[in-house]
Amino acid sequence: MIHETVVTTLSKQGTAHVAPMGVRFDGNNIILMPFRPSLTYDNIIATRCAVVNFTTDVRVFAGCVTGRRDWPTLPAREVPCVRLAGALAHAELRLTRARDDPLRPTLTMQRVVDATHGAFTGFNRAQAAVIEGAVLVSRLHLLPREKIDAEIAYLKIAVDKTAGPAEHEAWQWLTDAIAAHYESDEPAHQRALS
Amino acid sequence: MIHETVVTTLSKQGTAHVAPMGVRFDGNNIILMPFRPSLTYDNIIATRCAVVNFTTDVRVFAGCVTGRRDWPTLPAREVPCVRLAGALAHAELRLTRARDDPLRPTLTMQRVVDATHGAFTGFNRAQAAVIEGAVLVSRLHLLPREKIDAEIAYLKIAVDKTAGPAEHEAWQWLTDAIAAHYESDEPAHQRALS
Repeated sequence: MIHETVVTTLSKQGTAHVAPMGVRFDGNNIILMPFRPSLTYDNIIATRCAVVNFTTDVRVFAGCVTGRRDWPTLPAREVPCVRLAGALAHAELRLTRARDDPLRPTLTMQRVVDATHGAFTGFNRAQAAVIEGAVLVSRLHLLPREKIDAEIAYLKIAVDKTAGPAEHEAWQWLTDAIAAHYESDEPAHQRALS
Repeated sequence: MIHETVVTTLSKQGTAHVAPMGVRFDGNNIILMPFRPSLTYDNIIATRCAVVNFTTDVRVFAGCVTGRRDWPTLPAREVPCVRLAGALAHAELRLTRARDDPLRPTLTMQRVVDATHGAFTGFNRAQAAVIEGAVLVSRLHLLPREKIDAEIAYLKIAVDKTAGPAEHEAWQWLTDAIAAHYESDEPAHQRALS
């Protein structure tokens, strides 16, 4: 099972990096498989720790694939890292095993702290649509325009019916990025989900 | 913003009823607008209370639209009602205003208890697909088969890529229900069209 989370890391120099990532749980470990090149991977190899944040603020997901990576963070409790402010929960991780791979290395990380900050308030179909839209935006350079247009039209139904202000804002960032991509010829923010 | 939740109520005779419902938050109130006929509505009018459960167990959503309504419950803390066992959080509600309507009455209910039982573990794209699939199954009699087939094919991609065992089980219930619907219905439907 893949959990769509936001991973926060620090560089050796102390610069925070915020990146959405699908992760797996394996007992008391969390498995990260970032696509290289990945600043998250480089930071974890350098610092041997990371934080996995569980948030329903879909602006972070849509923001990171549209060039908005400056999300507020707070110090982690036990590892020398930061966590995402506003997440419902987070897990602090220490690297226990790194299997290198030119394309997609595997990082096995032990959960050393689990903390809950807020209550889950139920599924929201617009949030799910933003997550799917963010996946599409991260693959704009790989997918035919007809597929993008058809899926965005389908996803928009749930946004129109069920979104709150944060979901509307996130959706706008995605549709703006898609429009900009097709206006210019430049692939927008490739690899941004890793 | 619509939150997809599971509402638990008791009849005057003490029989539990479990029903997925999209609800709205309004300050310290939660607004329910059940479509009549609705056992949830009848129970709330009779008992003047309800519990809104926030769960990521999508089997409850898929189960309720495929005839599996017998989900374990526990007593609520302060209102004479039950809550869903296994929910990540719940809110106990007392009815403060009922606006009747032959189609869709509005129930304004005050949150009197908020309780958290488990941590959110991140979005899961398969869970979102099951929620969308459950919406489709609840509208099988209203939608053309091509639309159902196309949307199920689209949603299945996320299920195949990201589901855990609970999501696979829920998805199976949905696709079984769709198959059963067309096995029983289609000949008559085709005759009616020809």
